[in-house]
Amino acid sequence: MSPQLSITILGCYAAAPGTFKNPTSQVLGIRNHMFLIDCGEGTQVSLRLNKVKFSRIKHIFISHLHGDHFFGLMGVITTFSLLKRTAPLTIYGPKGIKEIILLQLKLSQGFTSYPLHFKELESKSPEVIYEDEVVTVTTIPLKHRVYANGYFFQEKEGDRKLDINKALNLNIDNAYFNKIKQGGDITLEDGTVIDNKDITFDPLPPKSYAYCSDTAYKPEIATQIQGATALYHEATFLESHEHLCKPTGHSTAKQAAQIALDAKVGNLILGHYSTRYRNLELFKEEARTIFEIVHLADDGTVFTF
Amino acid sequence: MSPQLSITILGCYAAAPGTFKNPTSQVLGIRNHMFLIDCGEGTQVSLRLNKVKFSRIKHIFISHLHGDHFFGLMGVITTFSLLKRTAPLTIYGPKGIKEIILLQLKLSQGFTSYPLHFKELESKSPEVIYEDEVVTVTTIPLKHRVYANGYFFQEKEGDRKLDINKALNLNIDNAYFNKIKQGGDITLEDGTVIDNKDITFDPLPPKSYAYCSDTAYKPEIATQIQGATALYHEATFLESHEHLCKPTGHSTAKQAAQIALDAKVGNLILGHYSTRYRNLELFKEEARTIFEIVHLADDGTVFTF
Repeated sequence: MSPQLSITILGCYAAAPGTFKNPTSQVLGIRNHMFLIDCGEGTQVSLRLNKVKFSRIKHIFISHLHGDHFFGLMGVITTFSLLKRTAPLTIYGPKGIKEIILLQLKLSQGFTSYPLHFKELESKSPEVIYEDEVVTVTTIPLKHRVYANGYFFQEKEGDRKLDINKALNLNIDNAYFNKIKQGGDITLEDGTVIDNKDITFDPLPPKSYAYCSDTAYKPEIATQIQGATALYHEATFLESHEHLCKPTGHSTAKQAAQIALDAKVGNLILGHYSTRYRNLELFKEEARTIFEIVHLADDGTVFTF
Repeated sequence: MSPQLSITILGCYAAAPGTFKNPTSQVLGIRNHMFLIDCGEGTQVSLRLNKVKFSRIKHIFISHLHGDHFFGLMGVITTFSLLKRTAPLTIYGPKGIKEIILLQLKLSQGFTSYPLHFKELESKSPEVIYEDEVVTVTTIPLKHRVYANGYFFQEKEGDRKLDINKALNLNIDNAYFNKIKQGGDITLEDGTVIDNKDITFDPLPPKSYAYCSDTAYKPEIATQIQGATALYHEATFLESHEHLCKPTGHSTAKQAAQIALDAKVGNLILGHYSTRYRNLELFKEEARTIFEIVHLADDGTVFTF
């Protein structure tokens, strides 16, 4: 069975891009959706390298307006136009992002070949910013030097799974299959009522993904994302540099793990490492003193849950 | 003898960056100067890969406000700050560039760690925009879909070279050496006047570099850059696609060569190739039907003259 959640890390390093160390960007696959989260410089090239189809991206979520999280956005928007995209694209991000983009489009005398929409954010409380039949996206207010949001992607409970053999044995017409998947009982021609549970399986439990970068340690995050399948939490520093967290608005690996523990998530993914560190395994070791299931993001890594 | 001119191609492809095909940016070394010309997305990483010292770049010249020529600029400006640069940086480019940069700095609540100056351009005639004791930089008005300038970098004539052996044989005190290099005659203690030409060599002829991208064929360029040591002229298309030049504001390899011929330049460098072409040698072959000394730019190539 294909995974319900996949996370492709395009870049996961803090601050200035280095040679082969990309700034933040990732692609979340959740059911039929493909969401781009943050968009550091070079993201469009990373999308190509990781063979992500540009046309599948219809929503881009920007956490905050520091360059290592959005300097690649204008390039993505422009390239989509060069490719003569027609499908709408919606950008979610802090208030001001629309002005940045429209000013540059105006000065380049450029227009997008597709409808470009914006949802600018300024609330300091969680708000649902996207919802359709399969997924809800809610902001996760973060604690950083500038206004910043993480994003909580929650799959909705899917339809029940039809036990096709039982349905065929009972001669149920396939015209009823959708009703059954939606939980309905069935009355056969002889009047027998078939309980829905007798001809269906429970759906897969819905999955969820919490993206939290950049942020200082903020316990309220754990309250909001209880039981998430996976949490990506920034870990810019090791505990040995904890004194740098307050002035920079970042977290240590240990603090990220504390959020994972308190939120009882299934998996913790660490990223946004300061480039001062050479051995990323130290982040995993530090986090595992608090929380067991820890994964290290790296450029090009794909996680599936 | 070290070259007076060096051109490091960081990127030379048109439109959207591809994997291993960078958009436009190059570094000109001229005497003690290192100028950055255009700054497509990913330029800061290319600078690192090509081992260009960030601190040596004090002036950045942007031709026009299409993304493939300036989407890397915010990243460069920001990274210079992260590196705690203190030396001033001046940006030359079309009117509007200052607003784009200051808006993004404001929204990221960022300040540069160094003085950031702007020289915004809007004249449609050539104008001297930088001058010091060794070099003059003049705009080259181009013909593109948006307001665009090339840049003409002209070395000034240097001091005369002292014939040190003759000077020592004549017992000339080294206190006079600077005067001699600047062309002065010398009167010896016995009253003999030594003609400057007898104890000096001519200085190296001054060199010059004309950067012209993006532009449609514009004969006036040749008039302005007569005798340039090297001309970088865009060649987005081959002659077989000449019909695309007018709607896009670009040139063919043959048209670039015609400018080189009419301007009697020493060398023609072609670049800004459309990514539709796989065999760049065709550009060289086409240009050489008009002008002999043709070089092909490619990412990472260094030319010295």
